[in-house]
Amino acid sequence: MDAEPVLDLAHLAHIELLTPDLEGSVAFFTELMGLHITERSGQSAYLACYEERYHHSLKLTRSDRPGLGHAAWRTRSAAALARRVAAIEASGRGRGWIEGEPGHGPAYQFDLPNGQRWEIFWEVDYASAPDGQASGLLNRPFRRPRTGIPVRRLDHFNLTAKDVEGTRDFLAATLGFAEREAVVVDGNGPTVASWLSVTNLSHDMALVPEPGPAAGRLHHACFCAGTNEALFDFADLCREEGVRIEHGPGRHGIGKTTFLYVFEPGGNRIEMLGDPGALVFDPSWATVRWPASQLPVAAVWTGTGLPGSFWEYATPPDAPYLAEAVGAA
Amino acid sequence: MDAEPVLDLAHLAHIELLTPDLEGSVAFFTELMGLHITERSGQSAYLACYEERYHHSLKLTRSDRPGLGHAAWRTRSAAALARRVAAIEASGRGRGWIEGEPGHGPAYQFDLPNGQRWEIFWEVDYASAPDGQASGLLNRPFRRPRTGIPVRRLDHFNLTAKDVEGTRDFLAATLGFAEREAVVVDGNGPTVASWLSVTNLSHDMALVPEPGPAAGRLHHACFCAGTNEALFDFADLCREEGVRIEHGPGRHGIGKTTFLYVFEPGGNRIEMLGDPGALVFDPSWATVRWPASQLPVAAVWTGTGLPGSFWEYATPPDAPYLAEAVGAA
Amino acid sequence: MDAEPVLDLAHLAHIELLTPDLEGSVAFFTELMGLHITERSGQSAYLACYEERYHHSLKLTRSDRPGLGHAAWRTRSAAALARRVAAIEASGRGRGWIEGEPGHGPAYQFDLPNGQRWEIFWEVDYASAPDGQASGLLNRPFRRPRTGIPVRRLDHFNLTAKDVEGTRDFLAATLGFAEREAVVVDGNGPTVASWLSVTNLSHDMALVPEPGPAAGRLHHACFCAGTNEALFDFADLCREEGVRIEHGPGRHGIGKTTFLYVFEPGGNRIEMLGDPGALVFDPSWATVRWPASQLPVAAVWTGTGLPGSFWEYATPPDAPYLAEAVGAA
Amino acid sequence: MDAEPVLDLAHLAHIELLTPDLEGSVAFFTELMGLHITERSGQSAYLACYEERYHHSLKLTRSDRPGLGHAAWRTRSAAALARRVAAIEASGRGRGWIEGEPGHGPAYQFDLPNGQRWEIFWEVDYASAPDGQASGLLNRPFRRPRTGIPVRRLDHFNLTAKDVEGTRDFLAATLGFAEREAVVVDGNGPTVASWLSVTNLSHDMALVPEPGPAAGRLHHACFCAGTNEALFDFADLCREEGVRIEHGPGRHGIGKTTFLYVFEPGGNRIEMLGDPGALVFDPSWATVRWPASQLPVAAVWTGTGLPGSFWEYATPPDAPYLAEAVGAA
Repeated sequence: MDAEPVLDLAHLAHIELLTPDLEGSVAFFTELMGLHITERSGQSAYLACYEERYHHSLKLTRSDRPGLGHAAWRTRSAAALARRVAAIEASGRGRGWIEGEPGHGPAYQFDLPNGQRWEIFWEVDYASAPDGQASGLLNRPFRRPRTGIPVRRLDHFNLTAKDVEGTRDFLAATLGFAEREAVVVDGNGPTVASWLSVTNLSHDMALVPEPGPAAGRLHHACFCAGTNEALFDFADLCREEGVRIEHGPGRHGIGKTTFLYVFEPGGNRIEMLGDPGALVFDPSWATVRWPASQLPVAAVWTGTGLPGSFWEYATPPDAPYLAEAVGAA
Repeated sequence: MDAEPVLDLAHLAHIELLTPDLEGSVAFFTELMGLHITERSGQSAYLACYEERYHHSLKLTRSDRPGLGHAAWRTRSAAALARRVAAIEASGRGRGWIEGEPGHGPAYQFDLPNGQRWEIFWEVDYASAPDGQASGLLNRPFRRPRTGIPVRRLDHFNLTAKDVEGTRDFLAATLGFAEREAVVVDGNGPTVASWLSVTNLSHDMALVPEPGPAAGRLHHACFCAGTNEALFDFADLCREEGVRIEHGPGRHGIGKTTFLYVFEPGGNRIEMLGDPGALVFDPSWATVRWPASQLPVAAVWTGTGLPGSFWEYATPPDAPYLAEAVGAA
Repeated sequence: MDAEPVLDLAHLAHIELLTPDLEGSVAFFTELMGLHITERSGQSAYLACYEERYHHSLKLTRSDRPGLGHAAWRTRSAAALARRVAAIEASGRGRGWIEGEPGHGPAYQFDLPNGQRWEIFWEVDYASAPDGQASGLLNRPFRRPRTGIPVRRLDHFNLTAKDVEGTRDFLAATLGFAEREAVVVDGNGPTVASWLSVTNLSHDMALVPEPGPAAGRLHHACFCAGTNEALFDFADLCREEGVRIEHGPGRHGIGKTTFLYVFEPGGNRIEMLGDPGALVFDPSWATVRWPASQLPVAAVWTGTGLPGSFWEYATPPDAPYLAEAVGAA
Repeated sequence: MDAEPVLDLAHLAHIELLTPDLEGSVAFFTELMGLHITERSGQSAYLACYEERYHHSLKLTRSDRPGLGHAAWRTRSAAALARRVAAIEASGRGRGWIEGEPGHGPAYQFDLPNGQRWEIFWEVDYASAPDGQASGLLNRPFRRPRTGIPVRRLDHFNLTAKDVEGTRDFLAATLGFAEREAVVVDGNGPTVASWLSVTNLSHDMALVPEPGPAAGRLHHACFCAGTNEALFDFADLCREEGVRIEHGPGRHGIGKTTFLYVFEPGGNRIEMLGDPGALVFDPSWATVRWPASQLPVAAVWTGTGLPGSFWEYATPPDAPYLAEAVGAA
């Protein structure tokens, strides 16, 4: 008889992006994507989308180089947190508990095989709209912003990995991630990229090949706007505002989401999601395995093929790519 | 300490609609909404959307009057099915096992307090695209249809209930449904309508007040197209094809989904969903309770208020409403 | 042999709206619809959309009551202006030349039969984007604004008329307007509403019945956003910002444009156009004559029927309607 | 004093495309783009879009090689036709009158400097919907089709020219075309591509450089669907149906229209227009002159740069490009 699935992680709660241009990054997310600041503290700003209820889904922290500070997942219960901490500790990857981060209670830290820092927690703080910022909708935490092309919520992020299969197996075994789609070497060979979720989204996170020697890198973070028109509007706005667009609008084969990829001023790649694509409800879903020879269709079903930079640039960047990719001097 | 949530139901698998005009209903769903027939058997036709993998998400069965035949949910595992059957039996509402329905394995039947028939099952059949109907996408079960405004998947359904609170409490306690939003009598009074889900959708099903003495009625079934433009296109097509539109396009407050309501030829109300609205990821989500005095905003945030028929017509219909509502002679 | 058409008017150049809440109206158009101010002078503000090249398409003037100050059309040439002035003078409706209005050269004033003030002119001033406001597109006069749901251009306006046929005939004979669609009393009776254009738009202006004894009233002015999604977004924003929505989103039968009608803070009805609908290219176009019995389809093809206020409220308002229509105390 | 403009051409009435796969081309336009056949005669089929009133806007004719048969423009009046014929004859490019083409009266033929065949005419036949195909809208000639992604109307076409400036000057002087935008050699040098119109569209036709020694070639013909969502939907459908997509969705800088370019089965490049972009109303519009160094922005404002094939492939094709461009064996 099949083992029952581990359902202890509820969803991606927030990510921390490192940025060498904190004020530029804050302006990008608030003025062009419509997030609002819920707290500033030291070298960090905490932001949320108008359809999000937690204290923050995005933490921006000043740093010498762009990249991922950490990603944090909320469990389904206190008991679920305890179970996952035990599993992580058993895996030997645990780092221990932290306290005192604004926005949530005790969190347990650990590192992925390729070095990215993650956290899981249960207790969370909810943000309240300041006076005059409440929505007319009881189920909308903040009033729809007037500015930019507002995104509704953090959607997912992609990481690079040297050992995609090993990382995927760790995520599945220890945390309950289900693999939804994968790119494999033709002839049912090893997996070279993997899309995984703990929710009904086609992916809450993905693993793509690490092109260089670096460890712990972020490929991109994605926020959901919810309509294809938003992609055209955001692309128009980015062109006007000098934000470099890497690719899109287009539709991925994998996940069938529509996309626009840009670089925020700190140098991190940001995806805006239009159509959220196909949700996954089937509890016995079998991984859709794309042979690498079909990568062009898997990567882009509608639109032009991905540029080379998509496979080569991640943050923190290898030096030669940064200037070109983000249009910096 | 809080009890851990019951997570045994995976999702809504299919619904059976009764129709006095089987061929008309089949034509509506295949030619105007892009479903395809996977099997015909006796007085029934089995249909699926092009983005769905199971044998069917819609069963159409000839009957004297329109209405809900049954709704069926898939569990997350065989063990989960056994647990839920035990819970249903303990509730005294169980009817027993059935075998032999095309498309899935043994299913356990039971009735809601207001009489609607439901089933839960684990074993399911997958449909394969016939030769020449395969998609270019490995993750799309059938080729995108050429005809109509194709919907991607069954989304949810609404039922009428004389005892909304009792039905909701049964669904929560016995099956693990989480209430996402509700309309309550002002002053924190009793719940008169309730939106519930076992997935990340804002609702997999909802309970609205039963306006008459009838039992076991269907308010509507909803299929997701995924874009607002589809609502305008489908409304245009329905006007041309003589399909009566009840309301929309517009956006609900509850769930923040966009909608178009029409009547299929058998007389059942069908919703096409455009923007799927806000997903629910928070595992400690507290029901958004709309005072009945705010019902207009809860019902329609963008667009004109719902017509009286929306609150009065369900299937099988009270006699006086049918002719008017579906435009029949 | 048919007479050749008069082609002397090029297009609607601008309208002047009167407002008892000048600052509120300016804020509405700049912050929510994305117009920018090109000049302020005395009791007036001059505004343009980001895709417009002239000094202004909208003049807002402080006044006791809302309504139309004037509408102004640009001719195709200086000679065309002279020809139309001669024709107006011959009609007995001319008022004479004015000089010195910001944004254009000498203009000839005249009044429609029901009292609305119009002007025609040839010489026009172009606006230049201030430093830092230039677009990356050479064919876009101003950078796409960051704020609100930006409209591209003034589209059309509707006036009330006691004598629709007489006014239409004056516009056709004296100025060369072509009637595109009309609502007529059944049985090929008199015209009760008329849509006319000098461009390829389905209407540059329209005449609807004056419901009361008033003269010189404005039914609405319309700005084009260009997408249906903008209507949903603008409706969302208006709900949040306390702007009263009268109707929509929906699609008119006449013109096949999509619409949202709101009231700006001064009390004037403003339409946002989504899909610009069907253009008219046929030089021998025969008026599409809708029998009044088909008015519901002519008025709204997709969406709910127009509310009573649509036929009863115009500006300046009859006293009883104002408070209700614009939500004022 | 400025000369008055020539306003004798009303609009593009139809184009004739040559195709080596007549049945394939007919199926493409009817099943995937929603045109209907109004007449078949000999080696030709005549088609119209559901929002078009004339007998046809597209003639498909069997031929050894793809390309443009001819393009035909309707004048604003019989007198306008006589004036333009006189001007063409004076230019030395006239070929004389033809009679008897289905769908319109006498037409005057002439050739552009690079060899493309054009016609102008005044008398036109209107098509009536067959029984059961009438729309519920009095202003819509045919019922909205159920199939494919229906386009509303023929929009424009592009031709290649060896002498862009000379051809443009001929079109302006003889026929009254106004140049809206152009690409020029930097430093205000000669024009290498030109977009012209006789309507309020940003272009009814365009001239792009002829890359080879060939004469009389067609770059593409464009049909307007009217929404950006249609581009995503059509791209999805084309992928499924094996229609080769060359580029898009994206937005041009010039005209600010959104686009998808595909190859119909006969080998001609077909553009689907989504957002019709910015209309031109200014009667003293000055050509927007894009320096060739800004061609990337002029060509694509939103989306990936145009592929090499866009500049190299036209019909009839140079032999080496055909197979690759249309995916033929």
